[in-house]
Amino acid sequence: MSKNLTTRSEDYSKWYNELVVKADLAENSGVRGCMVIKPYGYAIWEKMQAELDRMFKETGHQNAYFPLFVPKSMFEAEEKNAEGFAKECAIVTHYRLKNDPDKPGKLMVDPNAKLEEELIVRPTSEAIIWSTYKGWVQSYRDLPLLINQWANVVRWEMRTRLFLRTAEFLWQEGHTAHATRSEAVEESEKMMNVYAEFAENFMAIPVIKGLKTETERFAGAEETYCIEALMQDGKALQAGTSHFLGQNFAKAFDVKFANAEGKQEYVWGTSWGVSTRLMGALVMTHSDDKGLVLPPNLAPIQVVIVPIHKTDEQLAEITAEVNVLIAELKKLNVSVKYDDRTTQKPGFKFAEWELKGVPVRIAVGPKDLENGTFEVARRDTLTKETKAKDGIATFISGLLEQIQEDLFNKALNYRDTHITEVNSFEEFKSVLNDKGGFVSAHWDGTAATEEKIKDLTKATIRCIPLDGVEEVGSCVLTGNPSVKRVLFAKAY
Amino acid sequence: MSKNLTTRSEDYSKWYNELVVKADLAENSGVRGCMVIKPYGYAIWEKMQAELDRMFKETGHQNAYFPLFVPKSMFEAEEKNAEGFAKECAIVTHYRLKNDPDKPGKLMVDPNAKLEEELIVRPTSEAIIWSTYKGWVQSYRDLPLLINQWANVVRWEMRTRLFLRTAEFLWQEGHTAHATRSEAVEESEKMMNVYAEFAENFMAIPVIKGLKTETERFAGAEETYCIEALMQDGKALQAGTSHFLGQNFAKAFDVKFANAEGKQEYVWGTSWGVSTRLMGALVMTHSDDKGLVLPPNLAPIQVVIVPIHKTDEQLAEITAEVNVLIAELKKLNVSVKYDDRTTQKPGFKFAEWELKGVPVRIAVGPKDLENGTFEVARRDTLTKETKAKDGIATFISGLLEQIQEDLFNKALNYRDTHITEVNSFEEFKSVLNDKGGFVSAHWDGTAATEEKIKDLTKATIRCIPLDGVEEVGSCVLTGNPSVKRVLFAKAY
Repeated sequence: MSKNLTTRSEDYSKWYNELVVKADLAENSGVRGCMVIKPYGYAIWEKMQAELDRMFKETGHQNAYFPLFVPKSMFEAEEKNAEGFAKECAIVTHYRLKNDPDKPGKLMVDPNAKLEEELIVRPTSEAIIWSTYKGWVQSYRDLPLLINQWANVVRWEMRTRLFLRTAEFLWQEGHTAHATRSEAVEESEKMMNVYAEFAENFMAIPVIKGLKTETERFAGAEETYCIEALMQDGKALQAGTSHFLGQNFAKAFDVKFANAEGKQEYVWGTSWGVSTRLMGALVMTHSDDKGLVLPPNLAPIQVVIVPIHKTDEQLAEITAEVNVLIAELKKLNVSVKYDDRTTQKPGFKFAEWELKGVPVRIAVGPKDLENGTFEVARRDTLTKETKAKDGIATFISGLLEQIQEDLFNKALNYRDTHITEVNSFEEFKSVLNDKGGFVSAHWDGTAATEEKIKDLTKATIRCIPLDGVEEVGSCVLTGNPSVKRVLFAKAY
Repeated sequence: MSKNLTTRSEDYSKWYNELVVKADLAENSGVRGCMVIKPYGYAIWEKMQAELDRMFKETGHQNAYFPLFVPKSMFEAEEKNAEGFAKECAIVTHYRLKNDPDKPGKLMVDPNAKLEEELIVRPTSEAIIWSTYKGWVQSYRDLPLLINQWANVVRWEMRTRLFLRTAEFLWQEGHTAHATRSEAVEESEKMMNVYAEFAENFMAIPVIKGLKTETERFAGAEETYCIEALMQDGKALQAGTSHFLGQNFAKAFDVKFANAEGKQEYVWGTSWGVSTRLMGALVMTHSDDKGLVLPPNLAPIQVVIVPIHKTDEQLAEITAEVNVLIAELKKLNVSVKYDDRTTQKPGFKFAEWELKGVPVRIAVGPKDLENGTFEVARRDTLTKETKAKDGIATFISGLLEQIQEDLFNKALNYRDTHITEVNSFEEFKSVLNDKGGFVSAHWDGTAATEEKIKDLTKATIRCIPLDGVEEVGSCVLTGNPSVKRVLFAKAY
């Protein structure tokens, strides 16, 4: 099974595409650019959702649901946002099919069922949500509005890849409204921090927090905060964004409130989102040539137990022993699967669970029964050891924490050794091509330079790091003065 | 606030529409027929989802996600299903907007971005899912496939009402595939029973399990199981359906498997779903002229505590006492809100929480502090009593269970006294018009009679009850022989 997986060094991109399908995470559907998220992949997404949802609620947000469709006139109300998404929207124009008179058994769009106004399938929900907020906000007492939505959105991308870029994807989108500018800025930063915490503690992916340049900013935002991660092939991946919208949407949709003095003011807004794209980041950060490597905090199955037996009697004895262990593990909130299929050999099972990234595998054979031991294998390091059964459940529980930590540190080490400061454009190009990763360089702050560098190298400015220090420098391309380094990289 | 609510006797339909909006459950959006589900309404839906999801997983199902769009050729593959939904589908025909040359600042559909094949926004997902299952099923070892999806669907209804009938709604749809007919039938029945259990134990709504007639059956199903509830105005509401699909979709999408003998056979299918329509059933079953009445098992806030004070000192003393109670209630998994807003008077708060259907309200004033008591009010009966603070948390917890049970019994009593056996068409019409509810009558089993009765009375056959007994009778309309009574009603 895993024998057939292309290796990362052979072809990283092919390795990824194959792995997503072979590990039963997702597959392409019969609908252009749309994926099917398979049960095993969806179970990981559900764990992400549960944790993020908990974090959103803990920070005072509530969930709600807004329409899938946005009438064209509403969609175009905030011009920058409309312009940013106009080129990639699915558009509903009719509401009925009828029998095709020329082709028996076939249907055709009924030309008499044309909508008066076209509906855009939401690529993001600012327009529909701000048009609703207008009715919800009258006074400062109605603020802040702290709302999140779990939904599907559609962006008609021409080139798609499972999880990373699909025409339809699942995400959450927070949309908040505040009485003051500073409160809205604080909210944008808070949610960026929530995303960073989630990425690091649950996905075991270290991220850099920063600001997007104007070119890379969300259409309609005044400022876009982001978290940027680094994949094993040296390419960056934007893992989450949080936008300070200023009063742009409030003005476009006329959302005003009476402040404490009774004066009418426009509301300040934010929006923030992460999507099923995170699944792609998860796969690409940790996995290896044998398959997925899942961090224990997001693994649907944390421990798999495989019996090694020749006879039914042996299996019965092993099962009795295993049932005790399962009960102990469940008490410690460890999710465990006992793979006692008799249709497959242990070697097959080992390869299958390796491919699916289960963090810990326990094998039990007749010798273990004699010796009172279990064989414990780690997926991340591919190492195994024999452990006495006394205290094994506690050991496993601790081991899962250790693996979670080790995966993060491994990724952190890779990331940190792949941030390279450069001071000339020659150096810039050679680091980008030979080593990859983030290139930390001075930039003169103009969109023209940014574009030129992109044309010449395919690298974009991933972010202006929030923890960057001021230093005197000169732009790596133009030599013009600069006071802060920014991070460039090729990106997904 | 609740003063403005139309009463049920004045205008039941208006009462419902007003209540849904005033209680902050949902509102109409700027998109024809599509609703916004507000945070309070969504919190109830989330509780429904959590419980149903738990029940689905307990019965062996996994979640997955399939595309929103169905290409026309895929949509029309199963003819009955396609025909059943063709008249109410939203259709995507284009994938890009462009600047309108005649109207500066406005966008128009780009005629150069026409899709080669139109995409139907899923009204239900059998087509896309069965086209996927073809790739997942080869051998009997791949069966059963037990999959559920939480999703939005769109049916272009001409007349819409919040929750009860909306162009877009949220639902879950289970889609399973089995090796044998009997296994699939068993699955359909099992899921109908899951729905019934959920409706009765969580929503406190008694339901009748039955089969739909051929006329009322799901398009493409061989048999539709349903649960039918009765609203306070004597109209029935279909609360959930579970379909035995036979081999219809397997044949339409060529989903075959090799059985244990290696012979190719078509797979047997089921599908089953409940939707945000359940929110409408919940509102209409229990609520009264003062507002919502929520069963404790689904109430986002089970207990609200309102302080009655004149001075800040009193409030501080009350709060100290209340914090102890809150801690005790939380230990018992009771969700509680302390409404210590100083901007509103207690009377306003009482009315607001009555409108929002919080099952138990506790009020605490200076006298209570002196006497060591709390005033405990039940939303369902609008009664209150003064209780000593010792043991109050346990009392409240027990009271919530009692309210849950009482609500169910009240609804059951109403339902049971509104099933009327009739033996003539005159009786049929007078019961239907004067009393409403289910009319239990003999029917000759023909679609023609069913339609004629519908034309004459607006009543439809809600179901052929599963627990109905065989008895010799004659059709209430035609006098033709019949062996079993069926239930008629006017319905939502």
